[in-house]
Amino acid sequence: MSLLTPAQLEAALRDIGAKRYHRLHPFHGLLHGGKLTRGQVQAWALNRYFYQAMIPIKDASLLARCEDSAVRREWRSRLVDHDGEHEGDGGIARWLKLTGGLGLDPEYVTSLRGLLPGTRFAVEAYVRFVREKTLLEAIASSLTEMFSPVIIGERMAGMLANYDFVTRETLSYFDKRPPQAQRDADFALNYVKQHATTPEQQQAVLAALEFKCSVLWAMLDALYHAYVAPKQIPPGAFVPKE
Amino acid sequence: MSLLTPAQLEAALRDIGAKRYHRLHPFHGLLHGGKLTRGQVQAWALNRYFYQAMIPIKDASLLARCEDSAVRREWRSRLVDHDGEHEGDGGIARWLKLTGGLGLDPEYVTSLRGLLPGTRFAVEAYVRFVREKTLLEAIASSLTEMFSPVIIGERMAGMLANYDFVTRETLSYFDKRPPQAQRDADFALNYVKQHATTPEQQQAVLAALEFKCSVLWAMLDALYHAYVAPKQIPPGAFVPKE
Repeated sequence: MSLLTPAQLEAALRDIGAKRYHRLHPFHGLLHGGKLTRGQVQAWALNRYFYQAMIPIKDASLLARCEDSAVRREWRSRLVDHDGEHEGDGGIARWLKLTGGLGLDPEYVTSLRGLLPGTRFAVEAYVRFVREKTLLEAIASSLTEMFSPVIIGERMAGMLANYDFVTRETLSYFDKRPPQAQRDADFALNYVKQHATTPEQQQAVLAALEFKCSVLWAMLDALYHAYVAPKQIPPGAFVPKE
Repeated sequence: MSLLTPAQLEAALRDIGAKRYHRLHPFHGLLHGGKLTRGQVQAWALNRYFYQAMIPIKDASLLARCEDSAVRREWRSRLVDHDGEHEGDGGIARWLKLTGGLGLDPEYVTSLRGLLPGTRFAVEAYVRFVREKTLLEAIASSLTEMFSPVIIGERMAGMLANYDFVTRETLSYFDKRPPQAQRDADFALNYVKQHATTPEQQQAVLAALEFKCSVLWAMLDALYHAYVAPKQIPPGAFVPKE
């Protein structure tokens, strides 16, 4: 292991994104390409809700171990993005607009009764990672946001073109995210470039991003297995009506 | 144990404040009555800094276990109060104005090198309580804020009248706190009145407030022992210049 320059570290992070980000998962090809039924899209939105709902818990867990007031001040905007300024505002509320627009009852969605165990375990592993690893690794694990504006663009275009049951209003969650993700990713990327100053820390940063990619990937594996092929829905999980 | 009405629960909480809040501690009598030297006031401000600095860690720990977006949205204003909107703003920065106004080097204060072990252990116990107890108990442990506007009023008046080395500017931290504390205490009090619906939960709420009073009390015991009588300063702790 040799020490990378900050630019080399950034390049190595981008390389992980190019190879491991869930944009490459077959489920997203189907989702964005209009190859899924409404029930399969519902299953995706329902499961992803748990991820959305846990993001502020994850971010507050990071704040709870950060002793630098300036970093906390920056990171706290993520809580505002997801919980909003008032009832009905923020990313979680907008995700419930998405599930509602797809015809899912909000009480059922938020109850988590229909969640795939694979989704639950992957998301919980992410929260645990942020609670238990170093602050540097916790911050690095957020860096999948570097890659999210591209996938969101593809998703908006693909889903609007290919599904008559999806409207722009339903997808309003994704309208707001790219600038927020860009701002957050810039901060986190600068942070790790500045604070990963030993080869060991740099490797830990790279491993943190690989870990996070595997969380997002595992969520789609669980969806594919249950709802695409071999279509083995685990007991208790959401069953599409069609 | 019988179930209290919400009004009875509030009365029991206020009774704990009347008997156990650190307003009654002899150290505060000396502090507010002008009976301390500048060095003793420095010791108080230095030790209390650690409490101030850990408050956002405590509040983020609470957010990290709160699954209700609306409660998180409300509680997050505490992070804003303490970390501020920009560099130099917020409660922690204003506390450093206080220690600076008293003649303490900010690097020394924030290094925590001069902290009393008793302060450290009491504050850490508070953070651990919020991380490990139920959310209801964590929220209840904040209820000392119900009593803080009175003590702050006494402190401002007493310190300005009695110490020529204290200016209104130095005490600017306390100007901001009463309305913030009132808003936060109202929310937390309503929360526990609404959510402590069994005798066991009500007793846990009362015990949480007693615990928190003991944290604040223990901090002053440590100060009194080290700097008032018998003036036994533990090895490594701050030694006033006089």
